[in-house]
Amino acid sequence: MSDRLKVGIVGAAGYTGLELVRLIHQHPRLQLCWVAARDNAGRTLAQVTPALHGIAGVAELELQSFSPKDATALHGQLDVVFCALPHGASSEAVAALYQAGLIVVDLSADFRLHDQATYEKWYGAHRAPELLPEAVYGQPELHREELQGARLIAAPGCYPTSAMLPLVPLLKAGLIESTGIIVDAKSGVSGAGKSPKQSTHLPEAAEGLRPYNVAGSHRHTPEIEQELSRAAGHPVQVTFTPQLAPFTRGILSCTYARAKKGVTAQACREVALQLYRTELVSVLDVGQLPDTLWVRGSARAQLSYAFDERTGLVIGFCAIDNLARGASAQAIQALNVSRGWPDALGLPLIAQFP
Amino acid sequence: MSDRLKVGIVGAAGYTGLELVRLIHQHPRLQLCWVAARDNAGRTLAQVTPALHGIAGVAELELQSFSPKDATALHGQLDVVFCALPHGASSEAVAALYQAGLIVVDLSADFRLHDQATYEKWYGAHRAPELLPEAVYGQPELHREELQGARLIAAPGCYPTSAMLPLVPLLKAGLIESTGIIVDAKSGVSGAGKSPKQSTHLPEAAEGLRPYNVAGSHRHTPEIEQELSRAAGHPVQVTFTPQLAPFTRGILSCTYARAKKGVTAQACREVALQLYRTELVSVLDVGQLPDTLWVRGSARAQLSYAFDERTGLVIGFCAIDNLARGASAQAIQALNVSRGWPDALGLPLIAQFP
Amino acid sequence: MSDRLKVGIVGAAGYTGLELVRLIHQHPRLQLCWVAARDNAGRTLAQVTPALHGIAGVAELELQSFSPKDATALHGQLDVVFCALPHGASSEAVAALYQAGLIVVDLSADFRLHDQATYEKWYGAHRAPELLPEAVYGQPELHREELQGARLIAAPGCYPTSAMLPLVPLLKAGLIESTGIIVDAKSGVSGAGKSPKQSTHLPEAAEGLRPYNVAGSHRHTPEIEQELSRAAGHPVQVTFTPQLAPFTRGILSCTYARAKKGVTAQACREVALQLYRTELVSVLDVGQLPDTLWVRGSARAQLSYAFDERTGLVIGFCAIDNLARGASAQAIQALNVSRGWPDALGLPLIAQFP
Amino acid sequence: MSDRLKVGIVGAAGYTGLELVRLIHQHPRLQLCWVAARDNAGRTLAQVTPALHGIAGVAELELQSFSPKDATALHGQLDVVFCALPHGASSEAVAALYQAGLIVVDLSADFRLHDQATYEKWYGAHRAPELLPEAVYGQPELHREELQGARLIAAPGCYPTSAMLPLVPLLKAGLIESTGIIVDAKSGVSGAGKSPKQSTHLPEAAEGLRPYNVAGSHRHTPEIEQELSRAAGHPVQVTFTPQLAPFTRGILSCTYARAKKGVTAQACREVALQLYRTELVSVLDVGQLPDTLWVRGSARAQLSYAFDERTGLVIGFCAIDNLARGASAQAIQALNVSRGWPDALGLPLIAQFP
Repeated sequence: MSDRLKVGIVGAAGYTGLELVRLIHQHPRLQLCWVAARDNAGRTLAQVTPALHGIAGVAELELQSFSPKDATALHGQLDVVFCALPHGASSEAVAALYQAGLIVVDLSADFRLHDQATYEKWYGAHRAPELLPEAVYGQPELHREELQGARLIAAPGCYPTSAMLPLVPLLKAGLIESTGIIVDAKSGVSGAGKSPKQSTHLPEAAEGLRPYNVAGSHRHTPEIEQELSRAAGHPVQVTFTPQLAPFTRGILSCTYARAKKGVTAQACREVALQLYRTELVSVLDVGQLPDTLWVRGSARAQLSYAFDERTGLVIGFCAIDNLARGASAQAIQALNVSRGWPDALGLPLIAQFP
Repeated sequence: MSDRLKVGIVGAAGYTGLELVRLIHQHPRLQLCWVAARDNAGRTLAQVTPALHGIAGVAELELQSFSPKDATALHGQLDVVFCALPHGASSEAVAALYQAGLIVVDLSADFRLHDQATYEKWYGAHRAPELLPEAVYGQPELHREELQGARLIAAPGCYPTSAMLPLVPLLKAGLIESTGIIVDAKSGVSGAGKSPKQSTHLPEAAEGLRPYNVAGSHRHTPEIEQELSRAAGHPVQVTFTPQLAPFTRGILSCTYARAKKGVTAQACREVALQLYRTELVSVLDVGQLPDTLWVRGSARAQLSYAFDERTGLVIGFCAIDNLARGASAQAIQALNVSRGWPDALGLPLIAQFP
Repeated sequence: MSDRLKVGIVGAAGYTGLELVRLIHQHPRLQLCWVAARDNAGRTLAQVTPALHGIAGVAELELQSFSPKDATALHGQLDVVFCALPHGASSEAVAALYQAGLIVVDLSADFRLHDQATYEKWYGAHRAPELLPEAVYGQPELHREELQGARLIAAPGCYPTSAMLPLVPLLKAGLIESTGIIVDAKSGVSGAGKSPKQSTHLPEAAEGLRPYNVAGSHRHTPEIEQELSRAAGHPVQVTFTPQLAPFTRGILSCTYARAKKGVTAQACREVALQLYRTELVSVLDVGQLPDTLWVRGSARAQLSYAFDERTGLVIGFCAIDNLARGASAQAIQALNVSRGWPDALGLPLIAQFP
Repeated sequence: MSDRLKVGIVGAAGYTGLELVRLIHQHPRLQLCWVAARDNAGRTLAQVTPALHGIAGVAELELQSFSPKDATALHGQLDVVFCALPHGASSEAVAALYQAGLIVVDLSADFRLHDQATYEKWYGAHRAPELLPEAVYGQPELHREELQGARLIAAPGCYPTSAMLPLVPLLKAGLIESTGIIVDAKSGVSGAGKSPKQSTHLPEAAEGLRPYNVAGSHRHTPEIEQELSRAAGHPVQVTFTPQLAPFTRGILSCTYARAKKGVTAQACREVALQLYRTELVSVLDVGQLPDTLWVRGSARAQLSYAFDERTGLVIGFCAIDNLARGASAQAIQALNVSRGWPDALGLPLIAQFP
């Protein structure tokens, strides 16, 4: 065990926290040592989540109450902390942990946007803006260089991951127009988090499908646009239509863009293959289309491209597991890359299918 | 009972056939008298569909074997026949029934496309092309005049219904550009029909989401384009992305189009309200978004509009029950209109919610 | 309209309330005139439940705030009130409405148990015990005589309905032993009501199955036992195992009892057929087994029986829609019977299948 | 890699075959080298199962056509073969592979029943009855001794696993009567295998629940009885009620038995804890009840016990993932035990929750 980093999780009882527990448990270089949660302090992980009953080394971990002033005491005790708190609540905790010398991987939105004004327009006042320049956006395929040795990693959002993966290669290679891009994305309900709401109550969410926060009103819009703009080399705006789909895990994004002259689906596939060289992005053959079931539980994304000759639109498809590739597995992948380990180290590749 | 039309169904054991049985059973002016099916001849409806066990007047109806040559014998015995056969198999049956003097409502695609060449490109040789000019496209809100007294009605497809309803008012009113229109549509699995396939096997279809037949390869593309072109007054092409969603009933279509100058969501809503005056199309307030659950089992469609000011796109949303508004209920609505009855006569308005 | 009873609903925004709205809307002798709810007073039905948007005569009904002292003012304005409040909260409202001369159908448990002490053991103090002798248990097939002219009807619980229907005929006819009876029952999540909880949050309820309140700890136990005891003519106790199943509507109960000598599945079926003569209970043929899908949305129950020759156990199966036959449709059926109307008047018989 | 056993799978394209692929891929002592299937020979795993697209070392494995005469050629090339063929088709293949000197783990029913006559009553003629005495029933917690060094292992069925786990400790310890035992079991649809059928077509299986093959007519009955009889020391018969539940993975079994005098839920729990000492069976605290979601994707089972004081019945609950603990993971666990490795070696412990 001496070659393992000692890991803590703040927000361990939420869904991305639990997914981190699952993934860290089978990671050869990480050792889960400490967990905290805003509620339920003093209870064990198994008491809060009976799915963990009987898991040696995990079930009996007691949820700590954590406040930023406790951070220095964790120095020496832990090497890495994953912070899985809600947006806004995360930045202070992250700042304290980072300043205490720990490696911090933040799963909230608090350090994803480089521009403070943009952050504050969508999320309110930022409590640690001085750290924004330190944070590295943890999309490993697109930010590999910056991640080397990074100590403050902002793990990407679920929808942005599914939008970026198909679109960035096309923008980088100049295969599509950068205006008029549409992201029509459908997410499983676990993306809404662990707190029950009327809109996630099974009788009102199973067996139906509905859009929400459309026409530029969803907070993931600026994150998508930040990364697409970076790829294009100039500002890009998108029409983003999130939808709630009646299952637990998975995002399917259909992205639409006007092809530049002479572009084919195969050309799109090739630039994606060049950009994505790890086994964590699977670019399907032209004619194949992804399914969220094919990546459920896996750290991998599936992409494919189609070209509508009649209308001149390229359609890029992406399927991910929102809790794995869209959150916790990608956070670990970013940590892996930051340590110089292989991207996929310890991560589940094969989906639970069926 | 003497004021009821005597009704038969060819293809009564399929899903649109069964939905017709359900709806006709509670219709005050229709009386189900005769049912036929390609398989299962000689068995009763309840034997083939145990859900119907014990329904007086329905359960014991015996499925007949029907071939076009039997049509004349039905004259006098029936007033109306709904034909719920697969595409291609329908046209001969429809032609024979029509020529026998019956009112025929066809739920297949065989009489939806006015242009024989277009039909044959997508479906193969047409077996009764001489009747194409007789057939009325049974979208009652859009073809009300032509439906008066019609004897050969082609009930619209499910996806086309969900695409037309939000887009036609905008095209008619000139609020959107007619190029670059996208229809991103998600359908419940009942839309794939009753025959089990690998892709509809529960372990491979529940808990996932996937596109299929994208980029202009789905047969509903020309039907959507026919009706949008009619509304626009010139040829319109769309990018249509059908997706299989993990529930039984419902279609949610998100349609995207570039707004003309000065257009607002409210302006879109108003032209839709003007066009749709029946209670069978419900145009939600701006800010409300439809849910397939809210129309499940109902003959009604729900529409709404959003405008993305940043990108200039209008998004029109439509939720329907694919078997009801998208097939059997709309077929009965078209018959109602053709007879001069109220659109909604006998049709379920309130969805089964939750 | 003059031949319609004027109907009000207290608790109209909950799930059984909404199901009443759906069913009353298509009932030829009932007219929904007034709705009340504990929350949301002043908002319309369509504002609270967008599924009702655009339904003429329903959407615009404004939810009233109702307290028992308002009951007398309803006299003359209404003929019947359905009370769909939670247990405990219902009895005072029911008492006031009843004393104001209205017909009251109560969907809570408050008037189902004849014995006050039993009620208070499970639910706490009863606030209108003097009315317990007035209330008629609204299971129409089993209490038809008492329902004639009844003015205070206690609509049965969902689980008890599904347990009673298969077991009562066997106990009445003496075909089974009355000790050792087991009811293993699985309910859709709508049975847990409209308030979201962790246990009904889609990610923790879809795609799983779990028992709860087992071994005699569920409040429906005494109600089941009251009716089985009445059928047997002596006290009967059952082992009742409720389970939460991952869909919205439906209860499947498997009931187990030791057969008396010489009993066959066919004999069980025959005594059930003799007892249930309406089309609202469908006794399947021996060898057929019910499915909750086959009664979804319908007022009907499906029953069947099997006999395990090797072990001597009779298994009685029952499938119902918990919101329809298990609550609101059965409440209307009881009202129908109390008025001398046909049991099934205005009720949907054919399930929404598929 | 030299310390890994070389593994082949016959029937690799079915659901238990695919689950073996997933599990072997992350097993530190097994190396998947060879796959065969009855259909699809010549195609790669990824072509047949796009979920595997891009998985290095797996995706490109080409499905072989295998007939028993090819077995000897596999000697030297493979150490272990998992045989995931349908019942009846398996025995010849197993016999040939076993006689070629390979270790064989059979996931079919062909070697589970020790008694040839019983097998043939349920499954037809056995094609390798001479091997029945060689086969070890691969339930590791109950057959640990026999598994040491075993070369022919019959992996248990899914329903029997879920029935045995709670009942065997009680029978061994004499806490329950051995007559009148009931197993009410609900399985996800993947248990029905990969071939699509009407009964597993999503629109007829999602959103519903139904029993099938009840009253002693399901083939898993004799397997359950064999193991319960062994535990009791005398013949035991059960009433077994399988039900199809609307999700992909999971079995919840509720088992009912008459308690002997003085028995409590805690006493039941204690005998189970004594028997099950691995982390692969988790015996919940009294008052906790299992959920299939809590073991989804995991090799673990969750058990708990309740005692109904009023009726004297013990209820034993068991939740498993039918493809993992109920099939492929248990098969690997049995192999692990047979090799002297830890039970849980390489197996996923933490469920995918949510």
